[in-house]
Amino acid sequence: MASSFVSYLACYNICYFLAKDSHNLSKLKLPKIDISRAGNTSAVTKITTSAVSSFTHVTENLDTKQKQTRQNIPTTKQFVDPHRQGRIIDNGVRYRQMVVIRSYEVGPDKTATLESILNLLQETGLNHVWMSGLLGDGFGATHGMTRNDLMWVVSKLQLQVEQYPIWGEVLQLDTWVGASGKNGMRRDWELRSQATGIVFARATSTWVMMNKKTRRLSKMLDEVRAEISPWFIEKQAIMEDTPEKIKKLDDTAKHGTSSLKAKRSDLDMNHHVNNVKYVGWMLETMPDEFMEEYQLSNIILEYKKECGSSDIVQALSEPDEDNRTINGSLGSLNGMQLKYTHLLQTKGEVRKEEIVRGRTTWRKKHFKMPFPM
Amino acid sequence: MASSFVSYLACYNICYFLAKDSHNLSKLKLPKIDISRAGNTSAVTKITTSAVSSFTHVTENLDTKQKQTRQNIPTTKQFVDPHRQGRIIDNGVRYRQMVVIRSYEVGPDKTATLESILNLLQETGLNHVWMSGLLGDGFGATHGMTRNDLMWVVSKLQLQVEQYPIWGEVLQLDTWVGASGKNGMRRDWELRSQATGIVFARATSTWVMMNKKTRRLSKMLDEVRAEISPWFIEKQAIMEDTPEKIKKLDDTAKHGTSSLKAKRSDLDMNHHVNNVKYVGWMLETMPDEFMEEYQLSNIILEYKKECGSSDIVQALSEPDEDNRTINGSLGSLNGMQLKYTHLLQTKGEVRKEEIVRGRTTWRKKHFKMPFPM
Repeated sequence: MASSFVSYLACYNICYFLAKDSHNLSKLKLPKIDISRAGNTSAVTKITTSAVSSFTHVTENLDTKQKQTRQNIPTTKQFVDPHRQGRIIDNGVRYRQMVVIRSYEVGPDKTATLESILNLLQETGLNHVWMSGLLGDGFGATHGMTRNDLMWVVSKLQLQVEQYPIWGEVLQLDTWVGASGKNGMRRDWELRSQATGIVFARATSTWVMMNKKTRRLSKMLDEVRAEISPWFIEKQAIMEDTPEKIKKLDDTAKHGTSSLKAKRSDLDMNHHVNNVKYVGWMLETMPDEFMEEYQLSNIILEYKKECGSSDIVQALSEPDEDNRTINGSLGSLNGMQLKYTHLLQTKGEVRKEEIVRGRTTWRKKHFKMPFPM
Repeated sequence: MASSFVSYLACYNICYFLAKDSHNLSKLKLPKIDISRAGNTSAVTKITTSAVSSFTHVTENLDTKQKQTRQNIPTTKQFVDPHRQGRIIDNGVRYRQMVVIRSYEVGPDKTATLESILNLLQETGLNHVWMSGLLGDGFGATHGMTRNDLMWVVSKLQLQVEQYPIWGEVLQLDTWVGASGKNGMRRDWELRSQATGIVFARATSTWVMMNKKTRRLSKMLDEVRAEISPWFIEKQAIMEDTPEKIKKLDDTAKHGTSSLKAKRSDLDMNHHVNNVKYVGWMLETMPDEFMEEYQLSNIILEYKKECGSSDIVQALSEPDEDNRTINGSLGSLNGMQLKYTHLLQTKGEVRKEEIVRGRTTWRKKHFKMPFPM
């Protein structure tokens, strides 16, 4: 029973694997629910929803038996997964996986790219679910959610990177879930060097449920709470600051790219643009000379709506006013943190619609103060 | 000593990790050497060179000791790598690694994308080298090659896919090397389902050496041959047919995209477009309705020159004449193979220059005849 929260975990993929039937999500009226303040169990005020999952079976051409043989999804809770090098720790609720940074996961500086790290978060979140014995085909929800036509939507993701792993480095990636307000769930991650035990990155994300038919956000049903709450841990990877509202940029933003369009290879299994691609687009706006000198140390993403294959997307970025030092040049003090605001929006015929707002913090490269452990 | 061929293997990355100093490779006069016919030990007639590797140390800001701790590159030959789940088999020369298809490596149909498979080939080739004890920092060559300023260039890659792995599937990926003519090397791969033992894909590639300073192709020096030849196996993953010459397309090609340009995230550690990206661009030209119905069963790539971040690239594709059935529609018989020719070229100011020619074969999806084992 304790394992039944796990489809909840699959929700992480919601932002990556958007539902076919959510194509017109943005046109639908959604209740406004704020679940962004973890721990505030009564706050249900506002959310601009993002991305939606469903249970499309695109490999349906394989017969069930063949798929079961080839995928071998556990039907009971597992504590060790030798293929994925994962195991359940912490009294059976937290998941730990060893990963090695692959040659194609690094960028020009031979360190793991932000996209690679985000992909690994997705992967380990799903593998946590995989271990539970409750994962169906696809990126499902709990049985209770399925019975009630519920799916997951992600509203927020924050990633702090203290140090970027290098090619060939062996890492230990932990992930777990917790309550977020009355109706939401938090999924957190902690990424460490296996050799040194130093924490390289921490991340947290927030999720709520949506009814697939009415497209309305849902309270957490008792039936579902009974499934998932045994898996909740109090521990938080990132202690919440006072939540900072990300302002919405407009066309006066300093940096921008227009007419971004998804390539076929950018689309996920629901024919939508993969969420990791969003981040790539968002950061394409950053000037090359800046990217040569600075590395991202923190990113906060607030998801608003999904992006389909036919959408034309515009990316905007704006540095904070106080990024400028007295002499007018970008801050160059070692360890100085610079901040940017970002927006991805579709260029609709009638009006522009927000996909995701972002807030990033940057530090000079080779800033090596150890992360507090 | 037997392990010293291994930097040779790293050459696989040459097409992915192009040398900074090869930026102007295409402008240089290169000897024409044909190493495309494996087994023809005297043929040294013609090659249009492709991609070049070097030994740039982009993580040089890390001190040596820290890098050694974090990367932990073996200095002696290893037979088992528990982190990468790899081991040396076949009398100590062939490499076998277990891999699991990850959630973000699959496309809209929940099967591994072509790009994911190509990435896994690169990864296992490099891990083969990793095991050898001879891998330096970067994607190096043998010590003998380094002493003689030699690096690797890839001239050809062929991949046959009989069945696409699905999300979560556990695979066994073997790779090994052999002689290709007098001066070349072949690297082959075989990808199997671990559950059923069925071969899903086979691949082969051909490599020659280039002098980093003169930019001229080089014979295989005895010093280098002594290092690498103990690792050569006769076995070939794909038996050579009579090599088919890939014709060069021109602007009359049926399908084309213009003005492709690398994003920052498309660039590899040498600030060049990653070779896997080439394949993505090449196949972007294929019509959506075709891609919905057909899957790639074979691809042959002939590399001509590398592509930098500032290049504007044009992709062209042309179906074979006899792809049309009598009634004029694309062949729809189950198992019917359709063929296309492809070209990627830069749109230079003076003239267009070829990056890579391709030849693809396609079959109706859900064609499930087992691969001969």
